Amino acid sequence: MDHRKAYDKLLEKVRNLNYILSVRGLLVWDQRTYMPRKAVKFRGRQLSALSEYAHSVITSPEFTSLLETAEKGDYPEGSRERMNLFWLRRTYDRTVKVPLKLQLKLVQKATETEVVWREAKDRNDPSLVLPHLKDLVSLKREVAEHLGYESEPYDALLDGYEPGLRASEVEEVFSYLKRETLKLLTKVMEARESGRVPRPVRGHFPIEDQKKFHLFLLRSIGYDLNAGRLDETTHPFAVRIVPGDVRITTRYHSNDLLDGIFSTLHEMGHALYGLGLPEEYFGEPVGNAPSLAIHESQSRFWENVIGRSPEFWEVFYPFLRAFFPSLYDYSLEEFLFAANDIKPSFVRIEADELTYNLHIILRFEIERALINGNMEVEALPEVWNSKFKEMFGITPPTHREGFLQDIHWYSGGFGYFPTYTFGNVIAAQIRHRMEEDIDVRKAVGSGDFGTILDWLRERIHRHGSMYLPKDLVRQATGEPPNPHYLVSYLREKVERFYTPTHRSAI
Amino acid sequence: MDHRKAYDKLLEKVRNLNYILSVRGLLVWDQRTYMPRKAVKFRGRQLSALSEYAHSVITSPEFTSLLETAEKGDYPEGSRERMNLFWLRRTYDRTVKVPLKLQLKLVQKATETEVVWREAKDRNDPSLVLPHLKDLVSLKREVAEHLGYESEPYDALLDGYEPGLRASEVEEVFSYLKRETLKLLTKVMEARESGRVPRPVRGHFPIEDQKKFHLFLLRSIGYDLNAGRLDETTHPFAVRIVPGDVRITTRYHSNDLLDGIFSTLHEMGHALYGLGLPEEYFGEPVGNAPSLAIHESQSRFWENVIGRSPEFWEVFYPFLRAFFPSLYDYSLEEFLFAANDIKPSFVRIEADELTYNLHIILRFEIERALINGNMEVEALPEVWNSKFKEMFGITPPTHREGFLQDIHWYSGGFGYFPTYTFGNVIAAQIRHRMEEDIDVRKAVGSGDFGTILDWLRERIHRHGSMYLPKDLVRQATGEPPNPHYLVSYLREKVERFYTPTHRSAI
Repeated sequence: MDHRKAYDKLLEKVRNLNYILSVRGLLVWDQRTYMPRKAVKFRGRQLSALSEYAHSVITSPEFTSLLETAEKGDYPEGSRERMNLFWLRRTYDRTVKVPLKLQLKLVQKATETEVVWREAKDRNDPSLVLPHLKDLVSLKREVAEHLGYESEPYDALLDGYEPGLRASEVEEVFSYLKRETLKLLTKVMEARESGRVPRPVRGHFPIEDQKKFHLFLLRSIGYDLNAGRLDETTHPFAVRIVPGDVRITTRYHSNDLLDGIFSTLHEMGHALYGLGLPEEYFGEPVGNAPSLAIHESQSRFWENVIGRSPEFWEVFYPFLRAFFPSLYDYSLEEFLFAANDIKPSFVRIEADELTYNLHIILRFEIERALINGNMEVEALPEVWNSKFKEMFGITPPTHREGFLQDIHWYSGGFGYFPTYTFGNVIAAQIRHRMEEDIDVRKAVGSGDFGTILDWLRERIHRHGSMYLPKDLVRQATGEPPNPHYLVSYLREKVERFYTPTHRSAI
Repeated sequence: MDHRKAYDKLLEKVRNLNYILSVRGLLVWDQRTYMPRKAVKFRGRQLSALSEYAHSVITSPEFTSLLETAEKGDYPEGSRERMNLFWLRRTYDRTVKVPLKLQLKLVQKATETEVVWREAKDRNDPSLVLPHLKDLVSLKREVAEHLGYESEPYDALLDGYEPGLRASEVEEVFSYLKRETLKLLTKVMEARESGRVPRPVRGHFPIEDQKKFHLFLLRSIGYDLNAGRLDETTHPFAVRIVPGDVRITTRYHSNDLLDGIFSTLHEMGHALYGLGLPEEYFGEPVGNAPSLAIHESQSRFWENVIGRSPEFWEVFYPFLRAFFPSLYDYSLEEFLFAANDIKPSFVRIEADELTYNLHIILRFEIERALINGNMEVEALPEVWNSKFKEMFGITPPTHREGFLQDIHWYSGGFGYFPTYTFGNVIAAQIRHRMEEDIDVRKAVGSGDFGTILDWLRERIHRHGSMYLPKDLVRQATGEPPNPHYLVSYLREKVERFYTPTHRSAI
């Protein structure tokens, strides 16, 4: 068969497989929203039948031979064919390099560990889960050996979430970020000690009204509710099922407005990206986002860069007050300060924009050491707490608020955490580059989100994964991920809110 | 390979395929309930990718050879293996006998005709759709030739919905039923003319309260809302996604309680059956219902036999009045009479229990003639109206209320209609047989639905398709489908409500 024919046939196979696999998005959405409880057993079987099917297609002799033949074609650098083949080869290699037996063992161990972790967390008892985690780390190390790496085992796992990223690059970005963050945190703490602390926004905010406000917010920004939905779940998420169907969920607390609003803006950022991905590539590898960090850059951009900016609330605070008149007790500045509260805390998902990255850096240092064999799992509770004290100046009162807080490691997710902070890095960098084309403050302040969204679509969304993550950032902003912009952005924020002279503005 | 090994391997393949295909239930449910509008294009691709996948598995050389080898095994009559192989052979034959090209042509023509039908119905213009229907009938006739039959082409299509049923048997059942129904209808019309007409139950019934009442009804009867849901759609339906997940929908009108209640009871009947099918057979052919008529017998049983009985409303009318106090204006007897109103009408889905079967008999006579080549499509409007006049004594004022009312033919569904009336026949027969074991009136009147449901589970549900439809009816009731019980049941109903002397009870 000639190369072109093989390519076409391969892509048809891949598209059909992906149309089928796309139902997983719906299965997961349904499971977390409306599925009756007793469906859970067979829902699991549906999902594993789909995984087995995908595995059998990718590892079939026909697939291998089509891929190998297609790869002999001479497609121009950066062409759709070239990029599709690049991503298919990557998926293929990551699938076949790890023996099926090891993959199954890993899935089983991860499922088991996750269950035990929940109990260990509930009971605040590390001893329950550490032996399981030890096995899991050792299996992940085996996987890394099979996948292969140039300089350290951790790279093989990191690459699974962030194609092309190396631990040494993460280290470089993170060491600068850590130093600068700690400096800024010192400033914040000084200001706080001098009394510069926001007044918490408290009250009773009926859930039905919150829902209405969230929908109003989503519509105003440009999330098409004919191509998405907003539902309620304990853990907010976004899921792209197919083009024209990217759904989000959020949560509401009747005594707190902020958590829900920023959850919705975060998930909306993911959804706007999902809706901006090239529809005509759907089903092909180039039709997806190239990495988790790129995806996270979009959610953080809307949640933080736009959503916590003064201009944003200049537009929306009057509406928010119309929905919740008790907010007439809070000036715009008081509300803004509360939305930009910065202070050390124990739990990552409750952290502010500045200290959030410290939570990630801590996790990166630990998981890298675990996977590279430079640290024993037994030492984890101790290492976590001492590192935490060193960075945040406080010690977690329980392990539940310490090394047991996140599900990631206990479900086998090593190498995932850095993508969150890379998302922040890229979001700030996008904001900086966008400013060259758009007066962002002015656009936001006049409620013109279309201009901003168009920019993101043009520079990021429409490319799918026609570029590797780093190259996508380069082509969108002119340089690879550079933490300088995040630090400038955070410095500006700290100056805006934590300079005592500013107090008079309240 | 030995027979047993082939069988086991075949069944594993089939189970995995069916776990994947079971997501279609969710795709359809979602499409009709919560799916954002713009998902529709790719939802279609997901569904066709699944169909193509199923087709490719069933027609693969491996499947053929496993089936042929497994069939050489000597499995006892009525064993799970024997029945699985019977159903697999049937599916296989129905799949491979019709050339793929013809199948695709048919799907395309049906899709096209359905679209044109909607317009023809809206505009009340037969000329738009008749040429398309003519092509469709001719394609269905071709399909029948490929499938093969003993005595007439129509049998080949009927068998697709009701395995083993022949047109001659339908004719026998229907000619008796028609004669008896017309006699009863004459009695009803005489009573109506003498003034025995129910007072319509009118009022304003808030939708939110209706929802609450429906949920109360479902819970009281024993539909497990942890294994199902109740949502709202224009066209009510039930869908079994997996064991432990059988969902229903209904509709509400703020000025009418009855339509919604009986829709919910109907779909609940389907759902209770779906939840009673043997979980341990899920994914195997024997895990399904054996036919549409059997399924319909369960929905009609709950909707009509139980749901329109005086005893049922002796239990629930007090609650209904508590939800809707304006009903204190209507005596129980008035309410019951309204729920059992019998009169000729043009539209099948609005018909009462008695005349409903006349609607079906009309359709059977026509579709049988069309498929057997005994009638031209061009004659359809004329034949419909004259037959209708003959049976119902009235002529449809428009084709919209005449031969254009139902989607079935225009989407290629010929041979489907008889299953509805066979459902009624079987429901009444079940009621009769059940009486030998249970005092049904007493059970219903004391709200003891568990006893009734257990009987259905034991006699019908738990068998899946371990029997052919006719044999299932035989083993549950002692004889094959016999319209005598339906006629007795209807006669009793007519006597109960349309005997003038009874009026004093109001």
